[in-house]
Amino acid sequence: MKGSILITASCFLLMAACKPAKQEDSPAKFFASGKWIDLTYSFSEQTLYWPNNPTGFKLDTQANGITPAGFYYSSNAFSAPEHGGTHLDAPVHFAKAHQTTDQVPLEHLTGGAIVIDVSERALKEADYLISVQDIEAWEKANGKIPDSTIVLFRTGYGKYYPDAKKYFGTDEKGAGAIPHLHFPGIDPAAAEWLVRRQVKAVGLDTPSIDYGQSKDFKTHQVLLAKDIPAFENVANLDQLPVTGAYIVALPMKIRNGSGGPLRIIAWVKND
Amino acid sequence: MKGSILITASCFLLMAACKPAKQEDSPAKFFASGKWIDLTYSFSEQTLYWPNNPTGFKLDTQANGITPAGFYYSSNAFSAPEHGGTHLDAPVHFAKAHQTTDQVPLEHLTGGAIVIDVSERALKEADYLISVQDIEAWEKANGKIPDSTIVLFRTGYGKYYPDAKKYFGTDEKGAGAIPHLHFPGIDPAAAEWLVRRQVKAVGLDTPSIDYGQSKDFKTHQVLLAKDIPAFENVANLDQLPVTGAYIVALPMKIRNGSGGPLRIIAWVKND
Repeated sequence: MKGSILITASCFLLMAACKPAKQEDSPAKFFASGKWIDLTYSFSEQTLYWPNNPTGFKLDTQANGITPAGFYYSSNAFSAPEHGGTHLDAPVHFAKAHQTTDQVPLEHLTGGAIVIDVSERALKEADYLISVQDIEAWEKANGKIPDSTIVLFRTGYGKYYPDAKKYFGTDEKGAGAIPHLHFPGIDPAAAEWLVRRQVKAVGLDTPSIDYGQSKDFKTHQVLLAKDIPAFENVANLDQLPVTGAYIVALPMKIRNGSGGPLRIIAWVKND
Repeated sequence: MKGSILITASCFLLMAACKPAKQEDSPAKFFASGKWIDLTYSFSEQTLYWPNNPTGFKLDTQANGITPAGFYYSSNAFSAPEHGGTHLDAPVHFAKAHQTTDQVPLEHLTGGAIVIDVSERALKEADYLISVQDIEAWEKANGKIPDSTIVLFRTGYGKYYPDAKKYFGTDEKGAGAIPHLHFPGIDPAAAEWLVRRQVKAVGLDTPSIDYGQSKDFKTHQVLLAKDIPAFENVANLDQLPVTGAYIVALPMKIRNGSGGPLRIIAWVKND
């Protein structure tokens, strides 16, 4: 009898602990156990664009002061190329008739992420190509990358942003500067590997998923043709764990856009 | 002895069930039990702006076709006022020296949300002011709104977007059209109530948190002075449950901005 009471009591207690309270089950409660980290650079006159863009980001004041009615009011207009600062490459950027910015599904913009750190080599070698070997070494250390993962590469170049000379390899402007671009990117063979592994999206902390010296932008062609969007100039990748972060990467919803400003954040569990 | 084995066995089984597997604990697994819903209108030439804006959203093609190197490439530039389409009002929009767009903390842009549906009255009365009574009626039916909630109001006006005549009450342009604006908004007394309840942010499916006939934009003044950001022209509010949605509302990160394009999504648990 005593044993039976004991079983009943312990089951009751354990089952009560098992059953999630309605609140515990809610995402608001779930997310309270960690914090969101911003992986986005601000848009300003310092925002970096490909050297052949005639203009960069511009903010024009429409109003800033006390109105005749007596209250304070400020408002601006802005203009920018799609591809600069922290931004999205939509599949149509290099793949004709593929998804435009507004058509990239939220399933490819949200999800679990892994971070592959290649900074040790990339910071020594401006033309570094992230290789299949780099990804396989990551898997050897951390286990197989699951399907439907967002794969982020950390080259360490984030620490140079927005110093064009260090980040791009040149601070010259115009089409003539393009041959002088030197920064790390992803080897097309690694892009093919990522396609086979059916990743959701790819991001990194350089101006482009193809390295600065690329002429054919093959990595763009490979990934975007398979509707795998790219996130470029991603900030603060040093703040993410190797596994376990959850990404929400939301581009400005430009109809018929080939890309655009991206606000990308990561949720990371508290220690 | 048998009883003791039984206790040990049942405890072992129950405790194993209690202990979350590493994967079950991850946000990627958590979010797999529901779906993200997009609450954002696309930016295009149809995007609605306040009638006195001289221009709206503009997309300019920079490239679209086969390059001399033989691959397809498309790229655009764009321009827009900050306040139109689905967008953020940052505190500095009406509160001098308060947070600019890039400074609004992620804590105010992410969180659990409730939806207060006032569409039955608002669709009959273009100058409808969402009242303290509307909020208190919601609480009577659904329980107290917790602190740090994102409060979304559904007026039903979303179904009119982007038909300016129905959505704004006028399709005229220029400053002369402003007195003809008729759409629902939030009564300043309700804004004061929301401040006292320490909500994270406020959103709705009309062009402005102040109703069309407002002259002093008092609701803006009340909320923004307390650093409670506003989400305007929010889409698809009819797709959200009354409670339990989780919002991620990410504005384009405009340094010194008074607002800007907002990509807002909601996570909703599967039925």
